[in-house]
Amino acid sequence: MPRIAYFGPQGTFTEQAALAFALEDAELVPVDTVPLALAATRRGDTDFCCVPVENSVEGAVPATMDALVTGDPLVAVAETVLPVHFSILVRPGTNEIKTVASHPHALAQVREWLGEHLPHATPIATASTASAAKSVANGEFDAAVSAPVAVSHYPLSEFATEVADVADARTRFLLLRKPGFLPAPTGADRTSVCVTTPDRMGVLAELLTELRLRGINLTGLESRPTKGKLGEYRFYIDLEGHVAEPQVGDALAALHRHSREIRFLGSYPKADHEPAPMHNAEFTAATTWVEAVRKGETG
Amino acid sequence: MPRIAYFGPQGTFTEQAALAFALEDAELVPVDTVPLALAATRRGDTDFCCVPVENSVEGAVPATMDALVTGDPLVAVAETVLPVHFSILVRPGTNEIKTVASHPHALAQVREWLGEHLPHATPIATASTASAAKSVANGEFDAAVSAPVAVSHYPLSEFATEVADVADARTRFLLLRKPGFLPAPTGADRTSVCVTTPDRMGVLAELLTELRLRGINLTGLESRPTKGKLGEYRFYIDLEGHVAEPQVGDALAALHRHSREIRFLGSYPKADHEPAPMHNAEFTAATTWVEAVRKGETG
Amino acid sequence: MPRIAYFGPQGTFTEQAALAFALEDAELVPVDTVPLALAATRRGDTDFCCVPVENSVEGAVPATMDALVTGDPLVAVAETVLPVHFSILVRPGTNEIKTVASHPHALAQVREWLGEHLPHATPIATASTASAAKSVANGEFDAAVSAPVAVSHYPLSEFATEVADVADARTRFLLLRKPGFLPAPTGADRTSVCVTTPDRMGVLAELLTELRLRGINLTGLESRPTKGKLGEYRFYIDLEGHVAEPQVGDALAALHRHSREIRFLGSYPKADHEPAPMHNAEFTAATTWVEAVRKGETG
Amino acid sequence: MPRIAYFGPQGTFTEQAALAFALEDAELVPVDTVPLALAATRRGDTDFCCVPVENSVEGAVPATMDALVTGDPLVAVAETVLPVHFSILVRPGTNEIKTVASHPHALAQVREWLGEHLPHATPIATASTASAAKSVANGEFDAAVSAPVAVSHYPLSEFATEVADVADARTRFLLLRKPGFLPAPTGADRTSVCVTTPDRMGVLAELLTELRLRGINLTGLESRPTKGKLGEYRFYIDLEGHVAEPQVGDALAALHRHSREIRFLGSYPKADHEPAPMHNAEFTAATTWVEAVRKGETG
Repeated sequence: MPRIAYFGPQGTFTEQAALAFALEDAELVPVDTVPLALAATRRGDTDFCCVPVENSVEGAVPATMDALVTGDPLVAVAETVLPVHFSILVRPGTNEIKTVASHPHALAQVREWLGEHLPHATPIATASTASAAKSVANGEFDAAVSAPVAVSHYPLSEFATEVADVADARTRFLLLRKPGFLPAPTGADRTSVCVTTPDRMGVLAELLTELRLRGINLTGLESRPTKGKLGEYRFYIDLEGHVAEPQVGDALAALHRHSREIRFLGSYPKADHEPAPMHNAEFTAATTWVEAVRKGETG
Repeated sequence: MPRIAYFGPQGTFTEQAALAFALEDAELVPVDTVPLALAATRRGDTDFCCVPVENSVEGAVPATMDALVTGDPLVAVAETVLPVHFSILVRPGTNEIKTVASHPHALAQVREWLGEHLPHATPIATASTASAAKSVANGEFDAAVSAPVAVSHYPLSEFATEVADVADARTRFLLLRKPGFLPAPTGADRTSVCVTTPDRMGVLAELLTELRLRGINLTGLESRPTKGKLGEYRFYIDLEGHVAEPQVGDALAALHRHSREIRFLGSYPKADHEPAPMHNAEFTAATTWVEAVRKGETG
Repeated sequence: MPRIAYFGPQGTFTEQAALAFALEDAELVPVDTVPLALAATRRGDTDFCCVPVENSVEGAVPATMDALVTGDPLVAVAETVLPVHFSILVRPGTNEIKTVASHPHALAQVREWLGEHLPHATPIATASTASAAKSVANGEFDAAVSAPVAVSHYPLSEFATEVADVADARTRFLLLRKPGFLPAPTGADRTSVCVTTPDRMGVLAELLTELRLRGINLTGLESRPTKGKLGEYRFYIDLEGHVAEPQVGDALAALHRHSREIRFLGSYPKADHEPAPMHNAEFTAATTWVEAVRKGETG
Repeated sequence: MPRIAYFGPQGTFTEQAALAFALEDAELVPVDTVPLALAATRRGDTDFCCVPVENSVEGAVPATMDALVTGDPLVAVAETVLPVHFSILVRPGTNEIKTVASHPHALAQVREWLGEHLPHATPIATASTASAAKSVANGEFDAAVSAPVAVSHYPLSEFATEVADVADARTRFLLLRKPGFLPAPTGADRTSVCVTTPDRMGVLAELLTELRLRGINLTGLESRPTKGKLGEYRFYIDLEGHVAEPQVGDALAALHRHSREIRFLGSYPKADHEPAPMHNAEFTAATTWVEAVRKGETG
């Protein structure tokens, strides 16, 4: 029975994402922080970990970005994207809502909805959306802004569902494990790497030109300063295709040559399953030609 | 007397940044959110606004990124960088600390310090670091993890100062106003723009190549999806130099040509005052030569 | 009455090109070499000079390439393209052709035709196609492979015309003068420059990337080593558009910045009059925007 | 005994180059033209052919450029560079020089020397420098401007040697054979390819950027229009390194991907034996890393 550590507690969006990966019989293990989730898998306590990686409103999740490149390598084997729709949970039979509890980020994301539907309720900050649900369950507050999955953990009712000020806000989650297994290419894959560049003018332009010249589609780019040397950056690059494909393998080799350090963060099926237009045949033909030239078989 | 709206309440790091801009006799006006701070200046209620733009641990501040490009243009005229050092504030005479209150982000940034110095205190999440200080002042909790400036607003003592798990964490703040005034170049300036690119493979590589070919030093790059069309991105670009300089003006014109939309976010002295190595003479010579050619004065 | 020096003697293709420029009442002055033609104009002895610049079979004309960048600047104000079709000239009444004289290059270009039509004639090398015609006129040889115009200078008959092994061979000629007058843009222009680059890896890639990023169409590129420093090259670049156009002016300024030396060799109507697709509006809009930003008129 | 076809007749610089390749016991076979030299090797009549490829004064040799890409592939296995120093040959006992014969190109390259040393001699154009020597030997003219080797073929004396207006003029020659044998890398090699590009704006910039990004040093670039489609060019590219090296093989594969057609023209020791600074270790390391990632051995 595989074990999946996730950024808990129970009842959060990350638990919901872990469930979405639909590993049969998986045991979900909530841990307190993103770094702890990765550490559990690194230590071998769990086979996988599930962590949020970016949110369409908030951007990249810094804790995940940093934890991915600190310590032993982990690679993503799957991604899932969840809409950021909250449920407003109350104790069954609640008549009046005077207080609404949640994590400050969640409160911020339903501010307008609250203003319209519960204009007189006082917002209360809690440590997580799940702890808000818990505090409602034990009678401390009247309503919780929670992940939909929370209703399955507490004796609460749904006062409202699919609540969100930004209709199409989404969070992307990764399922990570130790290197050793690479999902097979599906024709609709994404590859993630983290590159640390030397402190040199134009180095990012060169990295991206390597991708452009190969017809590789960039789907994400995040930069974060390294803790060490000033002016040195880490770039998290998401691109279409799978490292097992000639086009992507060639591109990653190019990134390797331009970087001080590079870490492979996985090749995995895209959540949207939209086929990526690849040009692998051109890469295979080019390699075949060079080999023939080297053998003296052609001019 | 100039008025500066800032992301309040009183006693936060943003207030401290607003004070650091050292505008004589400025009146500081706390507002509840970053968008409201910008809105106050857009409406003309305040002359300036002061907002956090990026944190070395958390990365870019999404609320600021989004608010900068929504509504009428505002331009930065100054930046300041504050170390993220907290003060632990208590009521004078406090003997025992059972509860420590703060915004969850702040609690996260002093987790290790608390584990070492106050291992038995219960952390309490509040809506802001300033509201934590307030709740300590009124006796609700025992200690607050606050911005240093908070001590000047509440009758509290410093139990500890310069508290931070990451020693060199820093937050960068901008002072924004309506266009109409451009700070004079100082030789150590930064220019910020936001570019919306067409959905085309390689467009970011081309933008950055334009900068590289001009010897322009990129000091920051953040990408955020636009809300509208899928695959369309906004890039926030920080570069060295001042738009009044030939080299930077030429580079910004190039960015303009490659973008669907571009917004100038300001040219202003860098907080570190480190001179940027520019090549303006080459740009002036090139322009002068083309003009001479056009007049038939040279071959 | 304008005077045009041309690479003579009378009766060559270059004379024919000089006539094609159709300057009313021009006096044509044959000189012995390409460098002498340019020298005549540099000294002011002639107003213009007409020289071959490239041949579709032989490539660039080295004498012209070198003379263009040695000495005072000259700029092209017109180009013309002539088909390389020879006339076989004989004395009227000639019955048998035992010898065929011409410059070795011309003999090479009609080798197949001679093999088919005059298989028993002995080819004789002369110093120019015109001197071959002259030697036929004075009875020395039987036939001359000449430029069509030669028939107007000697008492000879056309044995055959439009003779050429390669049907579409063409030579391009430039009409040069001292700087001081720039032909007006016509919407179908070409601009020529000569750039000397520093001895640095990748410098040509950068020059051409400057053009590519501006959507400038390269129509010709010739490289020649400079006589001086080893590893230093001169690049002769032909591109579509006119220096008076914003797009081309901007591109030339970029080339100026990357080069050790640059010489403008003219903007002039293309011989084929095919409109070049330009993007000047984008360049004007970009410059206008930067100016507005500098004045504080926009963000 | 290997047979080498060369662009004859006997007594030319090309014969001298063929001798310089110093193949033991080689039989030298003069043929009339460059294309015929290549054809002899393509047919198997000779094992090798020796042809001039570029001259530092005249530039690329068009006949060689065109013949290289027409017909079956041939690859260069060696290069040699000869100084263009002429010998002035006369019949022994000649007292007065009234006529000086040579190919017009050779006469042009010693014009100044003749003006100084033989100001009253009449220049006579012949079909080759060797035929000039022959005509002097048979008493037709008084002196011949010849390749130094000519003296070994005719009963003539050296009136002067090392004659040249441009002191350091040089011609580069290639020794070609059918594919099947690749010279071993020496650490100081050159690789030549011919690339036909699609008619697309910026394609040459992209080709050269592929080389620049790999730190490949370009040592020669010649462009020639293809006979077929207008706007389509052939580029002859010389670069440092050997196709057997990882860095060069990778670069050639990239060129293959960008071209409509590509022909390998050889990897061979540079005539100057100057080591080329290569970065093969970086290329090997990058490939090794990608392979490890594909096997799941690393992140």
